Amino acid sequence: MTIKLPRLIPKEEKFFAMFEASAKNMLEGAGALKDLVYNYANMEEKVQHIEQIEHQGDNITHEIMDKLNKTFITPIEREDIHKLASELDDVLDAIEGVASRLFYFKILQPTPQCVRLVNIIYEAAKQIEKAVSDLKHFRSLMPFCIEINRLENEADQISRQMIGQLMDEEPDWRVAMKWKEIYGRLETAADHCENIANVIEGIVVKTT
Amino acid sequence: MTIKLPRLIPKEEKFFAMFEASAKNMLEGAGALKDLVYNYANMEEKVQHIEQIEHQGDNITHEIMDKLNKTFITPIEREDIHKLASELDDVLDAIEGVASRLFYFKILQPTPQCVRLVNIIYEAAKQIEKAVSDLKHFRSLMPFCIEINRLENEADQISRQMIGQLMDEEPDWRVAMKWKEIYGRLETAADHCENIANVIEGIVVKTT
Amino acid sequence: MTIKLPRLIPKEEKFFAMFEASAKNMLEGAGALKDLVYNYANMEEKVQHIEQIEHQGDNITHEIMDKLNKTFITPIEREDIHKLASELDDVLDAIEGVASRLFYFKILQPTPQCVRLVNIIYEAAKQIEKAVSDLKHFRSLMPFCIEINRLENEADQISRQMIGQLMDEEPDWRVAMKWKEIYGRLETAADHCENIANVIEGIVVKTT
Repeated sequence: MTIKLPRLIPKEEKFFAMFEASAKNMLEGAGALKDLVYNYANMEEKVQHIEQIEHQGDNITHEIMDKLNKTFITPIEREDIHKLASELDDVLDAIEGVASRLFYFKILQPTPQCVRLVNIIYEAAKQIEKAVSDLKHFRSLMPFCIEINRLENEADQISRQMIGQLMDEEPDWRVAMKWKEIYGRLETAADHCENIANVIEGIVVKTT
Repeated sequence: MTIKLPRLIPKEEKFFAMFEASAKNMLEGAGALKDLVYNYANMEEKVQHIEQIEHQGDNITHEIMDKLNKTFITPIEREDIHKLASELDDVLDAIEGVASRLFYFKILQPTPQCVRLVNIIYEAAKQIEKAVSDLKHFRSLMPFCIEINRLENEADQISRQMIGQLMDEEPDWRVAMKWKEIYGRLETAADHCENIANVIEGIVVKTT
Repeated sequence: MTIKLPRLIPKEEKFFAMFEASAKNMLEGAGALKDLVYNYANMEEKVQHIEQIEHQGDNITHEIMDKLNKTFITPIEREDIHKLASELDDVLDAIEGVASRLFYFKILQPTPQCVRLVNIIYEAAKQIEKAVSDLKHFRSLMPFCIEINRLENEADQISRQMIGQLMDEEPDWRVAMKWKEIYGRLETAADHCENIANVIEGIVVKTT
């Protein structure tokens, strides 16, 4: 005799698919920002495109939170789902914040250090997208976490050095004020990437 | 035969009453800021009044957290109680931050856009006060959430446009620096209103 | 007859020891910042020393989080452990942020108000270090919480007054921009001290 139990625990693998969609969308945003600073033209159109990606990110985040609220048993801890979704959203918010400020601050040309920072964020986004895809296997993601930390430290160094330099050498207060804010937001994007690495590390530690 | 059970679950409807008190107090703060920018006189007295409202908000928040720590079974999820109380507090903090900066930055006259933003925050506060009163019925609050999101988007647009304009057209760095901060804090107040809408949406989704 | 039960609940007193290490390290950072502003020389070396303390703090925080992820039953609530560890880390981050900015903004001499704020943070750090040591006894820490709140209020007053004064009287936008940021970060450090007092109050309320 076999007893066939009803499937009590719903298939919650969907969370992983949603995180993959969110990370992929975030990487798309980072790629669009990279394109923006490398091919600095058609600003309005490109910034609007990044805004659309950010709205798409909002929708994915909203779906994850909604599913979380309606799900009784989750494959990873509830608060980790919440935190991972929020931090992916925060990276994309910061990316959009940088793009829109380059536009409405009427920045004529991104500085080499701005390009460097955008590259770092793009690299971190690529690492995150890969790690999020691997998340469902709960394999060790230690090398990923170390690499993200390295990238965040590099971003921090560049940003601090540039803000110090602006305060010293920049003759125009407008330029100083604008770039201080843009560098600050680039650093914020890198900080949220590091937070994602920490959340992922926590998820892996708890489930292995 | 009837078995009369002792009331094991304590009456925790008090949380709803406390949230109503907190939302009402926050609305009072938003109203006081609205009065301040429309009748821009007796600044010191009016700012002190807003500070008193903010202290009152601190007390209510403290009471909620204290009750949360002492309560075993809560009518809504613990973390939602925590988040809702904190975000209501954050809106009021931002309101007080705007009022005090108008005063100690010696702003002679609020700009039309500042008045517009204060109006948006007041509208959002009214919506929130109503939604928090309805919370105990766990009825759908979707229209409320959509309206708050719309208000936050509008606040965001105005604030960004004004900061961009300050960077372009304002001749005096002092004025630029002061208003950049004030617009930023007005935007922060609107952001926290949106966070409240998200928490309330989550509470309703989970309990219906 | 005695039944000897295996020790099912692991010795989790280690959390308290780790928090003590974290608080002690944070106090060391506050002391190093105090030394920096009182003996304003050998900046590079002193700032590097504070950075080392901050890295040490990162390691302790990481250890706490890792232990939390691996521990099934905790002596205090999981989210309180998370919050206390994070906030201790945030105070030290803010301290390091102040020190490094004094250096790379090439500040020639700290203002008397900067020295006063550093003293307040050092006092708060001393109080916190003592409270964290007492935490394992779950005794009332109300006088400690009141004192930290008083210190935070004082820091807030000084910081606001100084930023207002900078906007009014400072002729050089560079000086205004630099000190606005440094005062802001000193206030942030005091804010996180207050958050620690709130977390500790919550822990004590829940366990008595």
